[in-house]
Amino acid sequence: MGSSLSVCVTDFFTYETSKSVVVKSWSVGIINRIVQLLIITYFAGWVFVHEKAYQVTDTGIESSVMTKVKGFGYHHGQVVDVADYILPQQGAGVFCILTRLIITDNQFQGKCAELVSMFKCITDEDCHRHFGAILSSGVITGVCLKPSGQSEGQCEVEGWCPVEDDNVNVTPMFDVNNFTIFIKNSIRFPLFDVTRGNFPSTMTSDEIKRCTYHPEKSPFCPIFRVSDILKHTGQDLVGLATEGGEVGINIEWKCNLDLDIEYCVPKYSFTRLDAPFAKNAVSKGFNFRFAKYFKTENGTDFRTLYKAFAIRFDIMVTGNAGKFNTIPTLINLVAAFTSVGLGTVLCDIILLNFLKGAEQYKAKKFEEVSEAQIEASLAQSPGSQLSLKPGMKNSYDSGAISLATPDQPL
Amino acid sequence: MGSSLSVCVTDFFTYETSKSVVVKSWSVGIINRIVQLLIITYFAGWVFVHEKAYQVTDTGIESSVMTKVKGFGYHHGQVVDVADYILPQQGAGVFCILTRLIITDNQFQGKCAELVSMFKCITDEDCHRHFGAILSSGVITGVCLKPSGQSEGQCEVEGWCPVEDDNVNVTPMFDVNNFTIFIKNSIRFPLFDVTRGNFPSTMTSDEIKRCTYHPEKSPFCPIFRVSDILKHTGQDLVGLATEGGEVGINIEWKCNLDLDIEYCVPKYSFTRLDAPFAKNAVSKGFNFRFAKYFKTENGTDFRTLYKAFAIRFDIMVTGNAGKFNTIPTLINLVAAFTSVGLGTVLCDIILLNFLKGAEQYKAKKFEEVSEAQIEASLAQSPGSQLSLKPGMKNSYDSGAISLATPDQPL
Amino acid sequence: MGSSLSVCVTDFFTYETSKSVVVKSWSVGIINRIVQLLIITYFAGWVFVHEKAYQVTDTGIESSVMTKVKGFGYHHGQVVDVADYILPQQGAGVFCILTRLIITDNQFQGKCAELVSMFKCITDEDCHRHFGAILSSGVITGVCLKPSGQSEGQCEVEGWCPVEDDNVNVTPMFDVNNFTIFIKNSIRFPLFDVTRGNFPSTMTSDEIKRCTYHPEKSPFCPIFRVSDILKHTGQDLVGLATEGGEVGINIEWKCNLDLDIEYCVPKYSFTRLDAPFAKNAVSKGFNFRFAKYFKTENGTDFRTLYKAFAIRFDIMVTGNAGKFNTIPTLINLVAAFTSVGLGTVLCDIILLNFLKGAEQYKAKKFEEVSEAQIEASLAQSPGSQLSLKPGMKNSYDSGAISLATPDQPL
Repeated sequence: MGSSLSVCVTDFFTYETSKSVVVKSWSVGIINRIVQLLIITYFAGWVFVHEKAYQVTDTGIESSVMTKVKGFGYHHGQVVDVADYILPQQGAGVFCILTRLIITDNQFQGKCAELVSMFKCITDEDCHRHFGAILSSGVITGVCLKPSGQSEGQCEVEGWCPVEDDNVNVTPMFDVNNFTIFIKNSIRFPLFDVTRGNFPSTMTSDEIKRCTYHPEKSPFCPIFRVSDILKHTGQDLVGLATEGGEVGINIEWKCNLDLDIEYCVPKYSFTRLDAPFAKNAVSKGFNFRFAKYFKTENGTDFRTLYKAFAIRFDIMVTGNAGKFNTIPTLINLVAAFTSVGLGTVLCDIILLNFLKGAEQYKAKKFEEVSEAQIEASLAQSPGSQLSLKPGMKNSYDSGAISLATPDQPL
Repeated sequence: MGSSLSVCVTDFFTYETSKSVVVKSWSVGIINRIVQLLIITYFAGWVFVHEKAYQVTDTGIESSVMTKVKGFGYHHGQVVDVADYILPQQGAGVFCILTRLIITDNQFQGKCAELVSMFKCITDEDCHRHFGAILSSGVITGVCLKPSGQSEGQCEVEGWCPVEDDNVNVTPMFDVNNFTIFIKNSIRFPLFDVTRGNFPSTMTSDEIKRCTYHPEKSPFCPIFRVSDILKHTGQDLVGLATEGGEVGINIEWKCNLDLDIEYCVPKYSFTRLDAPFAKNAVSKGFNFRFAKYFKTENGTDFRTLYKAFAIRFDIMVTGNAGKFNTIPTLINLVAAFTSVGLGTVLCDIILLNFLKGAEQYKAKKFEEVSEAQIEASLAQSPGSQLSLKPGMKNSYDSGAISLATPDQPL
Repeated sequence: MGSSLSVCVTDFFTYETSKSVVVKSWSVGIINRIVQLLIITYFAGWVFVHEKAYQVTDTGIESSVMTKVKGFGYHHGQVVDVADYILPQQGAGVFCILTRLIITDNQFQGKCAELVSMFKCITDEDCHRHFGAILSSGVITGVCLKPSGQSEGQCEVEGWCPVEDDNVNVTPMFDVNNFTIFIKNSIRFPLFDVTRGNFPSTMTSDEIKRCTYHPEKSPFCPIFRVSDILKHTGQDLVGLATEGGEVGINIEWKCNLDLDIEYCVPKYSFTRLDAPFAKNAVSKGFNFRFAKYFKTENGTDFRTLYKAFAIRFDIMVTGNAGKFNTIPTLINLVAAFTSVGLGTVLCDIILLNFLKGAEQYKAKKFEEVSEAQIEASLAQSPGSQLSLKPGMKNSYDSGAISLATPDQPL
């Protein structure tokens, strides 16, 4: 019993390694080493140096953006400032600069004639088929309003009157070209608890006030001239200011935290976001409607309606940070060592098929055992076939799995 | 010296391959091939075809959304249009349609009685314990205001007076059901520099104006009827319009850029975002307060307070794009080839344990060497034990690592 | 022909396994098992238990946030409530609490003197060099306005008059400290279609109204006191309320969906988002300008300009969910089994270099074949060199690739 256990323990603490054939051949030896060299080069160069597989990466960048626009424009004969032309006003990462306003002053609730030619009419019946229309400026009442003495008129609508006439010609506020946008972006990589701002803390108030962003000359200046941004996106001011549009400002943070933190800096790029619709006949540009509300002395509500064409700026912050960590380094080192062995697949093909003496090499590498042989040896001498290797009766594990066969004769 | 170097070089350019046992057995041979077939099928079918492991994937989708709502509603006896019921007005990806407004007109700064029953009082002391209350409509002054001749009254508050009475019954604007939402979504995959819009550029202005989104009939029409959206989320209009709520419109872009770019199209889905709170007794729905500010002739500020119940629409854009790339293809091919070898683990278990003649197979596969044998051979003839294999004195590398032992006798 | 095919088929259904050397040595056997144990421990402990490699992970969390602030403050001698001090008013995940307002009442379009000392002048020429300035309060007209009898004056600007004087001393609304923020956050993991809210559905209306968030005592209460939030971020109220700033509220969802869904709960953390700029001399804090518009009786527009210092709250929702899935489990099990074999690399080094009898072990493990031997045997008896192993004439596949050599003599 004790002896049986001791045999078990002895059998357990064995070491199994594959038997190898060493081929002393210049041709296949050189090929083998070259293949190994290529694999090592791939891992060292691509996986470790280029892909930085020794690092853990934090892609969950947290970002906060504040913006401040400065500049004055003339529109509808008035000087407009930032409180007039920015919407929303809170200096967020997405904001619109209103460049062209179609203003409909003093609208009161009531009934009046529609202006759009689509709602022309001769009889009330012409208007009835527009019931429930959503392209009108108010609810269609079904009445055809005709100027006295004329046979053709316009359908009556109920709502805010007079209705908007958006065919008027309004010159856009081209001054937008000289406006500047100040962007304050602070980011954080929560995994490494690293916090960065988009301009160096050594920059003085004066430096910031005087500088303008330029990709080469001052890549860290946080003040962007609108004309420069439009130039970078390849857009013309006239189209954008007249019809509106969307411009993306991408701030990219790619940080290697194994280097000094001062190398963790932002990179700006600019795109026209609504580019896919530029060639569409319909719905190019960007516009929306809003109203300002007033009260008359006697308390009646009235409003000023604005159809606003605007350039919308979207500040998008993306990025990731990497830092050395033992776990991915170990995993990739193991992967590298394992992969070096893959060269044998190629070399075996060459050795066993294309080399002079391939048959001899095969004879050396492969040892054959067929069912017929096994059966013959079993029939011949069931008790002695293993006489040369008495210890082989016990089970060996192959790889990671050991299936003990305790019922076999010991 | 030169000869020693040449031996080193010769030893370096060797090729080591594992010695194999080839078992000519139908049973284990068939199992072996079936296991290999399964592994190849897994890689070909799942990894390559289904998971598209031959592609690099860009998950950093850049998106920009514009929206435009159209429709007219009646509320508080007035016709309201988009400038009245949309907030914020800029046509962003997140917007609210106000469906029910509790309006408190002409609020001036001053002192007045609270309305909520929680602030009932008989003496001033009853109000003192409410000092610092935040559920009141203003700052509690500690005075109990009693209508003349009554013993019970309400605590006095300082702030905008008269205070809001949010128990009034206001019919929601059910017209919201017929409103339409136009969604313009342009996306970009920065890795491949591919830009797409959510409707084909071949769509004419007329087609867009006439169509309405339908999952099967017109899946690319960018105009969504609110009633359809509510139907897709399984919500009823009455509840949503009365109490407010949040509806998510998800636009999913899954693009295989190895196919024609025209197959890169959006897929819409709709959910009720505040669903987890639907069963909560508290805080269902969605409402907020805002005010419009006016001035009297003599310059005193007053305001109209709105408690707004609204349906908030969140347009969420997600997606990724894949394209063929040699690096992941190579890596996964190597993984596939390596994994085919894993079939031997299973086959070895069968061969060495369950097959007739398992002991014979073991004897063929395993060659034993014990410490006792080694010691015996070392003691017997220390100089001659390797006489049959004179070249074996040099060190061979096993796998990837070669430890030279230069001090051994050559 | 038929026989040739049958040989082919027989050859195909063979099984090739590596020939192994089993070393019965206590030292290397123990090392082998320890290395295998370490590798198994690493996979079981780190990969499976810690990294949960048996799960698929959904990182595409969908989130929707609603907020509601409550509290009253005194500012400029008035009681202000949520409709006055919150911007934007819709209760979104990003909102500002205005804590200090510099109010410039009754601005009309016109011309007036600039106030900032930078625009001091003696002659008109002094003002000409400011043409196009953006730091002024309006468009510089080039005229120097001098109070009667004085030699020094200020440049004239065109725009909204009178211009803002932002050097006035305004006491911030410190009452913000007692405000409470109610956060309603619902999330969804689209992959598993799991929806969760940030407070238990069993919480009653009363419980929610009475509780306040505390990291230990009530970690699921959705009501946050501003003073607590500032304490958690380590910021002082005076600085924030005076200069403005940004506070991040991070809601983290890490859900293990193999456990009961009730364990899928949010975790809150708080940070000062503009921390990197705290040490900058320039542009600390957060402020923006907005205006309210009025009309006089005769229809002239005028406005009240506000320079608002505000605390901006950004509610950021992050998270992921994992659930058991067979695919990653299988892949990682295979990786684990394969990696156990890596122990042989280390053991081979020990066995073949540092163990007593290393040379004998080498002789057992490696079988040598040199080009010279092969050539000699080819020259000696070209027909008989494989007489002992007649079946070896056929090609065997090595690993996964089989290159048939049909032209060899059968």
